[in-house]
Amino acid sequence: MTRPMEVDIPDIADVHLAHARIRAQVRVTPVINDPGLDDALACQLHCKCENLQRTGAFKFRGASNAIARLGEDGRHGAVATHSSGNHGAALALAAQLDGRRAHVVMPEDSSPMKVDAVRAYGGEVHFCAPTNAARAAALEVLVQEGNIPVHPYDDAAIIAGQGTAALELEQAVPSLEMVITPVGGGGLIAGTAIATRAWGVSVYGAEPSGAADTAASLQLGSIVKDFSPDTIADGLRAIVGVRNFEVIRQSVKAVLTVSDDDIRAAMVLAWRHLRLLIEPSSATVIAAIRNNPDLFAGRRVGAIISGGNVYPSDWLELTRSAGGGA
Amino acid sequence: MTRPMEVDIPDIADVHLAHARIRAQVRVTPVINDPGLDDALACQLHCKCENLQRTGAFKFRGASNAIARLGEDGRHGAVATHSSGNHGAALALAAQLDGRRAHVVMPEDSSPMKVDAVRAYGGEVHFCAPTNAARAAALEVLVQEGNIPVHPYDDAAIIAGQGTAALELEQAVPSLEMVITPVGGGGLIAGTAIATRAWGVSVYGAEPSGAADTAASLQLGSIVKDFSPDTIADGLRAIVGVRNFEVIRQSVKAVLTVSDDDIRAAMVLAWRHLRLLIEPSSATVIAAIRNNPDLFAGRRVGAIISGGNVYPSDWLELTRSAGGGA
Repeated sequence: MTRPMEVDIPDIADVHLAHARIRAQVRVTPVINDPGLDDALACQLHCKCENLQRTGAFKFRGASNAIARLGEDGRHGAVATHSSGNHGAALALAAQLDGRRAHVVMPEDSSPMKVDAVRAYGGEVHFCAPTNAARAAALEVLVQEGNIPVHPYDDAAIIAGQGTAALELEQAVPSLEMVITPVGGGGLIAGTAIATRAWGVSVYGAEPSGAADTAASLQLGSIVKDFSPDTIADGLRAIVGVRNFEVIRQSVKAVLTVSDDDIRAAMVLAWRHLRLLIEPSSATVIAAIRNNPDLFAGRRVGAIISGGNVYPSDWLELTRSAGGGA
Repeated sequence: MTRPMEVDIPDIADVHLAHARIRAQVRVTPVINDPGLDDALACQLHCKCENLQRTGAFKFRGASNAIARLGEDGRHGAVATHSSGNHGAALALAAQLDGRRAHVVMPEDSSPMKVDAVRAYGGEVHFCAPTNAARAAALEVLVQEGNIPVHPYDDAAIIAGQGTAALELEQAVPSLEMVITPVGGGGLIAGTAIATRAWGVSVYGAEPSGAADTAASLQLGSIVKDFSPDTIADGLRAIVGVRNFEVIRQSVKAVLTVSDDDIRAAMVLAWRHLRLLIEPSSATVIAAIRNNPDLFAGRRVGAIISGGNVYPSDWLELTRSAGGGA
C-alpha cells in the first residue's frame, strides 16, 4: 500500500482533531467498573467498552477519521482495504455514511460474521487466499482500478482515530495509573500511546503468544518478518506496522503475552462480571492483567475492550473448556 | 408479606431521594442509540442498558434502596424474600454490601444461572415447590424466624428505587417523547411512571401474551387472580402488585402484549445491532415497539432494557428459531 510522505506519525493534536471530526457519528462508549471483576483481578479496572462501538469494534473510529480526512483533501470516490474483519466493516460503514463505496479484500477463511458485517454496511467483499502475497495482489488490483487505499493500521489518520477512545477514557476516569490495549497491527495501541502522552499514565499492550510478533520485534529492535500467527484471537494476527512499531518502541512500557487458554478464561470472566460477550482479541487485556499481578495489583487500570464481534455460538465453542458452556 | 401503613405509594421526591441514597453503589448504566436498530424499528430508540447494571438487572436499584431505608429506620438484621431470580441476586448483593444476611425463597425450577447468582452474592437459597402457596409458606417461616421481609415489587422503597433508572434516562436524553419498560410484578413500570411525571413523556408497558395479567387486570379494572403464566420471559411471570397496579392504572398509557416468538426475534435484533445478550423479559420492549408502528414510528423512544441474565447457551437455544444460532 502506498504511504505518501504527508501521512506521518500523528501527534496528540491530531488525535484531538480526529475526535472533533468523528464525534458526530462515533459512539461515546461506556466505561464500566465492576467490583466483582476488581476482586477477581486484584486491581481497580475500568473497561472502555469499544465492543459496544458502532460496528462492534473500535475500528470505526479510525475508519471514520480516515474517510473524513480524504474528504477534507478533496479525494472523493471509492475506498479499498484488506481486513480479516473489523476494519473492513468499519470502513464499509464510514464510507457508506460518506456516500462512497468500499471494497474489502478478505481471506477466504474469514469469520462468516465478519464477512456478513462488511456486506451489511454495503461493502463489497473480495475473497483471496489466506496469504500476505494474495492479499497484497488483490488490493493492488483494486487500487489500479482507481480505488483509494485505506490501510487498516499503518496510517496516520487511522492511528489518530483509534486514539480517540483513550481521550474518552481519560475524560471518564482521570485518575488512572495505567492503560492496556490489545496489539495486532498496532493502530489502537499507537493511538492510545499518543493520546495519553499528556496524561502521564503507563501504557501496556497485550498480545496472544501465538501472534507475539510485536513482543518479538521489540526484543529484536526491528519488525520481525515471515511471522505465522496461530491464535484464537482472529483480530490480532497482523504484523505490527512501521509507524505503529515506532510509536510502541518509544512510548509503550511493555507488550505482555498471553496464551489462548488465558484468553478463554478472560472471556468467561468478562461474561460473568460484566455480562458482555467479548471477542478473543479483547480478552487479551484482561488475561494480561490476571497474569501479571506484580504489575497491576492494587493499581487503577484502564483497559480498552476492543470488540464484541463473536457469534454467541462461537463464543460458546471457544470458551467451553474454560467453563463458558455453563 | 406485611405491608405497614407507612409504606405507601411513593412520589417523585421519593425517587430522587432513592437516587441520592443508592448512587454510590449502583452503576449509572449506559444509554445506547444505534442507527441500524432505529432503521429496523422505524423510530429513534434510546436503550437504557440495565442489563449492564450490577447483578445484571435493574433490580439492584430497588434492593439497594430498600436495604438503605431499613438502615435509616434502625431495622438491622437479615432480610428475606421470594424471587425467581433477579430480585434475589440483587437483594443478596445489597444485603452483603450492608453487612446483612439475605434469605431467598426460589422455586425448584428456577434458572440455574439465577440460583448461582444469589449464592455468588452470599445469599442463602431456600427452594420451594413452584406454587404461590408453597412460596408464601416458605417465606412465612423465614419471617417468623425474625428475618425482615423485602417484597420484590409491591413495596414503596422498591418502586422508588426502580424509578431511578428513568431519572438517569431523562438526564441522558431529555428530548424523549415516550418511555417503555417490561411489566412483571410492576416495580419497574410503576417506578418509571412516577419518576417521569414531571417530564411529560408517555409511559408504556410491554408484557408477554403468556403472562398478560396486567393487561387483563386493566381491562377488568381490578387485579386478576389465579393467573397461570406460560412464557419464555421468566422475569415477568409474577402477578402485578397492588401498589403497582394503582400506579399503572393512573399513569401508564397502555400495556402492550407480545408473543414469545416476537420476544425471540427481538433478542436477535438486540444482539445484531447492539452486541448485547439480553434476557427474554428485556426483549419485550423491543418486540412491542416493532409490533406497534402506529404508536412508535418516527418517535423518540426510551426503552429500559431490564436484564441480561441469560446464559449464552440458553440464549442460543431460545433464539435458534429466530436466527440467533447463526
